[in-house]
Amino acid sequence: MTYCVGLLLNEGMVLLSDTRTNAGLDNIATYRKMFHFENPGERIITIVTAGSLSVTQTTISRLRDAMDDKDATPETSVMLAPTMLKVAEIVGNVLADVRREIDQKLSMSQGASATMIVAGQRKGGGMRMFLIYPEGNFIEATEDTPFLQIGEHKYGKPILDRVVKPSTSLADAQKAVLLSMDSTLRSNLSVGMPLDLCVINRDELRIGILRRFEAGDESFRAMSEAWSNALREGFSRIPI
Amino acid sequence: MTYCVGLLLNEGMVLLSDTRTNAGLDNIATYRKMFHFENPGERIITIVTAGSLSVTQTTISRLRDAMDDKDATPETSVMLAPTMLKVAEIVGNVLADVRREIDQKLSMSQGASATMIVAGQRKGGGMRMFLIYPEGNFIEATEDTPFLQIGEHKYGKPILDRVVKPSTSLADAQKAVLLSMDSTLRSNLSVGMPLDLCVINRDELRIGILRRFEAGDESFRAMSEAWSNALREGFSRIPI
Repeated sequence: MTYCVGLLLNEGMVLLSDTRTNAGLDNIATYRKMFHFENPGERIITIVTAGSLSVTQTTISRLRDAMDDKDATPETSVMLAPTMLKVAEIVGNVLADVRREIDQKLSMSQGASATMIVAGQRKGGGMRMFLIYPEGNFIEATEDTPFLQIGEHKYGKPILDRVVKPSTSLADAQKAVLLSMDSTLRSNLSVGMPLDLCVINRDELRIGILRRFEAGDESFRAMSEAWSNALREGFSRIPI
Repeated sequence: MTYCVGLLLNEGMVLLSDTRTNAGLDNIATYRKMFHFENPGERIITIVTAGSLSVTQTTISRLRDAMDDKDATPETSVMLAPTMLKVAEIVGNVLADVRREIDQKLSMSQGASATMIVAGQRKGGGMRMFLIYPEGNFIEATEDTPFLQIGEHKYGKPILDRVVKPSTSLADAQKAVLLSMDSTLRSNLSVGMPLDLCVINRDELRIGILRRFEAGDESFRAMSEAWSNALREGFSRIPI
């Protein structure tokens, strides 16, 4: 399993992913699930992935190959695509193709699957964030729903529902995604540290903050404990 | 969908269920999912149910028929069973039988399914709480894990994980299950008001509190709002 979340806010975008991959409970590994396609000052695209590792790795590899191809066109390269909508379409098409091919190898329908969040901004365009489904179609984050989640999304949703608005500051947004992840880590063993956090400031067109929280990270532990205490205190103060 | 939760605490037991049943999003109805089998001073059993309504209703009806049967035996009647463990076995067997019969009618395996929480105490015995699986097997709440959930359990689990211990008071326990339900109601449309709350005090062998929270219940709304405020305040005080 996996938990990834992305926030699209007035001040910028914040993404967080875990790194746990498992094939059964007795086969656990750490894999990065956050990928960046950056041409600083021109274009920044960050993708986080959930689902079958064979699908997500192949999809990301093909996106990179298509970028590096000397015959790359705006139809095939996410770095040349004229709009973020086109970027989402390219990612969706590659993802759907890869999934179909792997499904055929597995001789079963819908055997391997993956979802992705694609967030980015190109020079002259606005920030946009998409959730790409296994079939290649997608939805977009909006003012009304400024966050997208993939993977094990339920445990971490209540806090996002309550605190995340488009006007949320990037500092608060980092807290929100980390606490959302904290609730998920507590309840689902197949979501695990380390975590990858990325902050992209509006119109900077480059990665702002990139930070890995290793297992046992002191600041994450302190935040988690402060949140537990705040919840318990808040709980105790509520009249019955 | 459904959300039901039961807490097994030193002071007693607390159960909460929603009442929403749906067959598709365009066919929503209200059905009680909490059932009591009570012989005050002798025995109290409360059952909450999740899953296919045809399975849960038939199971509860058969349990009542078996109780009322003049040939009822400790092997068939939950009111005569010598232990709570035996009660869980009876409920499990009836549930598995009903499910199998309905599955056959539907001509598919595992088409209709249901889970139940069975909580109770008989004179001379301890309080016990079981989660009955569709196949009739079951697990029991313990000191380490003093709560059981069925249905849409994920949204409401983080708060239980953090505040519920065997030593939790019955007053705090009522708050905890209501706030756990509140998080679930916000995130899953197929869980809905009204709510049924039941409190059973240790060794009283009868229903202590039975309360229905109708849609728009003022005290529930106030508690929900106080919790939202407490979360937001707690969130804003956490250092980054």
